[in-house]
Amino acid sequence: MPWDEFGLISACFRPLSVAEPGAFQLTDDAAILAPAPHTDWVVTADALVAGVHFFPDDPPGSIAKKALRVNLSDLAAMGAKPRCVFLTCAFPNDLDKAWLNAFSEGLGEDLQAFGVALAGGDVVATPGPLTLSITAIGEVPAGQGLRRSGVRDGDVIAVTGTIGDAALGLDMQRAAAPESLDGADRAYLLDRYRHPTPRIAVGEILAARAHAALDVSDGLLGDLRHLAETSKVDILLDARRVPFSQAAARWFEIDPAAKERALTGGDDYELAFSCAIDDFSAIFESLAAVGVPVTAIGRAEAGEGRVYRYETGRRQLVAVPGGHRHGAEANGSAEP
Amino acid sequence: MPWDEFGLISACFRPLSVAEPGAFQLTDDAAILAPAPHTDWVVTADALVAGVHFFPDDPPGSIAKKALRVNLSDLAAMGAKPRCVFLTCAFPNDLDKAWLNAFSEGLGEDLQAFGVALAGGDVVATPGPLTLSITAIGEVPAGQGLRRSGVRDGDVIAVTGTIGDAALGLDMQRAAAPESLDGADRAYLLDRYRHPTPRIAVGEILAARAHAALDVSDGLLGDLRHLAETSKVDILLDARRVPFSQAAARWFEIDPAAKERALTGGDDYELAFSCAIDDFSAIFESLAAVGVPVTAIGRAEAGEGRVYRYETGRRQLVAVPGGHRHGAEANGSAEP
Repeated sequence: MPWDEFGLISACFRPLSVAEPGAFQLTDDAAILAPAPHTDWVVTADALVAGVHFFPDDPPGSIAKKALRVNLSDLAAMGAKPRCVFLTCAFPNDLDKAWLNAFSEGLGEDLQAFGVALAGGDVVATPGPLTLSITAIGEVPAGQGLRRSGVRDGDVIAVTGTIGDAALGLDMQRAAAPESLDGADRAYLLDRYRHPTPRIAVGEILAARAHAALDVSDGLLGDLRHLAETSKVDILLDARRVPFSQAAARWFEIDPAAKERALTGGDDYELAFSCAIDDFSAIFESLAAVGVPVTAIGRAEAGEGRVYRYETGRRQLVAVPGGHRHGAEANGSAEP
Repeated sequence: MPWDEFGLISACFRPLSVAEPGAFQLTDDAAILAPAPHTDWVVTADALVAGVHFFPDDPPGSIAKKALRVNLSDLAAMGAKPRCVFLTCAFPNDLDKAWLNAFSEGLGEDLQAFGVALAGGDVVATPGPLTLSITAIGEVPAGQGLRRSGVRDGDVIAVTGTIGDAALGLDMQRAAAPESLDGADRAYLLDRYRHPTPRIAVGEILAARAHAALDVSDGLLGDLRHLAETSKVDILLDARRVPFSQAAARWFEIDPAAKERALTGGDDYELAFSCAIDDFSAIFESLAAVGVPVTAIGRAEAGEGRVYRYETGRRQLVAVPGGHRHGAEANGSAEP
C-alpha cells in the first residue's frame, strides 16, 4: 500500500483504542495506564512472521486474531485478566486497502470479544514478509500470578479442552489429511489451528487455586517437560487419558500414527496446570460452570525435570526432540 | 544461524533480565511486575526494520542501542522513568554467533546504562530482513504524565540539546556530506544518528513542571506541528533561535541548504516542550544542573494547530510535506 496514506492506517486502528482512555486514541508518544489497586501486571510479547507462523494467504482477520490470541493465552496461563495490547506491524508494500480493512476488522472483533483495548503500537513498511509483534498486558490479584515452576510432588496434572487439534489442522492445511476425513471435521480442525481460544476465564479461576500453569503451545509433551524442568519434579503422563476431539479421534481411526503428532504438535493454546489432588474436583466443578472441560492426565512426583508416559502400565522416558516448530515453515521460535 | 541453538540465544539474553526479578530469567510465559505505589505506567512500542530504520551492516551493538533508545525517548517524552523492556526479534537465518553476541552485548551495555531490565520477549526466524520490536514500560508519579496536547496559549516552546545532527549524520552515511567537512565533525554527526540519547532525566524534571512534551523524532517542524495540532494552538517558531551543534554549523557554512534538512529531518530524540513563561527559567536551571542545555525557540498562541516560522520578523506558514521518512530507505513509519 502507499505509505503516505497514514490517514487510512489511523482510521483502521484508532477506533480499536477507545476502550482504554489512557491510549489517547493513539495520538501520543505512549499510553499512560493507571494500575488497578492491589494488582500485579502480567506482560508478555510474541512475534509472528508470515510464512513461518501463519500462511501469507490466510484470511487477514484470522492472522490478526491468531496474533492476538496467542498472546492472550500467555496471560491466561499466568492467571491474568487481559487489559490491553500494543501492536507493531511491519507491512509489505503490496498490502492493499481491502487487506488492511479485513485485518483491523478481525482484530477489532477479537479485542471486543475479549474485552481488550489496543493501547498503542507502530506501523512500518518492510521489504520482507508481514511481521507482527504483540505485547499484551494483563492484571492479576497481587501475588496470585501462576508460574510454571510451582508444580509440587503429588500434584495432579490436568489440561483443558482437547489436545492436538491445531497440529492436525496445520497438517491439513499442508494437505496431509487423510482423504476420507469428512468436511465438518476438516473445518473444525482448521478453525482450531487458525483461531485458538485463549483460556482467559480458566486462568482467572486457576489463579487462586492451582500451583502452576502454562499454555500448551509447543506440544503437550514438550510443555509438560517445561513444567517438570522449571518445577524440578518428574511428571508421569497417562497418555491414554489425554483428551482428543471427535474430529481428531476419527483421524486416528484412519491413521493411528497421527496420535503422536497430536501429542507433540503445538498451537493448542489449552492450559496445562497442576494442583493438589484435594483441590482438583472443586477446580473441575468451577471450570465446568464456565463450560470448560478439564481432564486429569497425570501426576507429579519428586524428580529431576523428566517426563514419563505410560500406556500399558510401564513408564517410558519421553525424549523431547529438538522442540516444536511453529506453523508454516521449519523455522523455530523460542522466548529469549 | 542454526535455529536449534536456542541455548545460545538464552545465554545471550537471559543475563540481561536479572535486574527485574519478575522476569523469572525469561523462563515463564510472561513477566509479573508489581507497580510501585502511586504511579501510572507509561507504555510505548516501536518496530525497526533493517534497510528501513537502520542499515543492515550497521554495527550490531549500535542497532540494539538505537532500538532501545528510541523507545526510552518516548518514555522520556511522557516524563516517565524507564523500568523494563520487552524485545521481539525476527532474525534472518544468516546471522552468526558473533553478530548475536555483539547485538546482545550492546543491548546489555545500554540496559545497564539506563537502569532498565529486559523483562521478556520472543525470538523467531524470518526469511526477510532483521526486524525488531521493543515495548518499553516506565513509571511516572500518578497524574503527572506529560502529553502532547497540553500546550497553552502564551506558553514558551523549548527544545533540549541541538537539532538536526542525526539527519545530517544520516545524509553522511548516504555519502552526501561535503568533502571539506572534517573527520571529527563527521564522527560526531554519525554518532548522533546511530546513538540518540534519550532525555530521561529531562523527562522526569519536566513531568512536574511542563505543560506538554514530545520527542523530536519526525523532524522539528513536523513535531511542532504535532504539538500544535493535538493542543489546538498555533506555534510560532523563531527559526533563528534553533540550537545547532558546531559540527552542523560548519556544514551549513559549506552548504547553507543543509539547514532546512536539519529543521525537517528526523531522529533527533531531543525533547520539545512547552511551559508557562514564568516557569521557564526555573526549568532552564534544573536542566542545566543535570548538564542539559535547553533553548526557547518560540511561543504558542490561540489558534488552530498551525506552525509559523519567522526569520526576519514576518511569519510564514509551515506547510509540512508528507512527513519525515525514517532512516535508510524512503519508507514511512507512523504510529497506528
